[in-house]
Amino acid sequence: MSVIPEDIKWDSKGLIPAIIQDKDSREVLMLAYMNHEALKRSIESQETWFWSRSRQEFWHKGETSGNIQKIKEIFYDCDQDSLLITVEPAGPACHTGERTCFYRQIKLEE
Amino acid sequence: MSVIPEDIKWDSKGLIPAIIQDKDSREVLMLAYMNHEALKRSIESQETWFWSRSRQEFWHKGETSGNIQKIKEIFYDCDQDSLLITVEPAGPACHTGERTCFYRQIKLEE
Repeated sequence: MSVIPEDIKWDSKGLIPAIIQDKDSREVLMLAYMNHEALKRSIESQETWFWSRSRQEFWHKGETSGNIQKIKEIFYDCDQDSLLITVEPAGPACHTGERTCFYRQIKLEE
Repeated sequence: MSVIPEDIKWDSKGLIPAIIQDKDSREVLMLAYMNHEALKRSIESQETWFWSRSRQEFWHKGETSGNIQKIKEIFYDCDQDSLLITVEPAGPACHTGERTCFYRQIKLEE
């Protein structure tokens, strides 16, 4: 029995964006995409699984790098078209070695 | 002169997802979409502007409700295809009156 709400809105490619946030530091780590099966695997394993849009395959975060993200909570928004997942990360979220993928800033005009 | 990085990757509809986070509480408030012009207006006004996919029009957050989001920082990720914007919100982010749009939770299996 799936616990995935039936009113979740998948986009035209069957995907939903998932914001990954560090449960303790509350730092936003990354944004990636899940399809129904990736969300199901994430719920069952309590580790993040995504659908890689570039490689067109499932992507178990940390499977290669060891930087698994242990899922603590999964929220969905008022429109049912995005997810917020809080995690306990085993290491950096970013393939560059940065803790978060959002390490570059756009300067605001003065 | 625009300060929008040239390597930002807009999707096939010219949009990029923007995660909105409360700068102080670090709560993730919402996810919405910007096109180039909405990002430009956001940078210039230092308030959030989005492109409403449902209404197909610009959406100046808080213009009707008064719940303006004052922009503090704008980050972009390693793939240049998502934004993280920290804000000081004047009120609830959600049209339901909830502080964050992510107020519902998917239960993890025990």
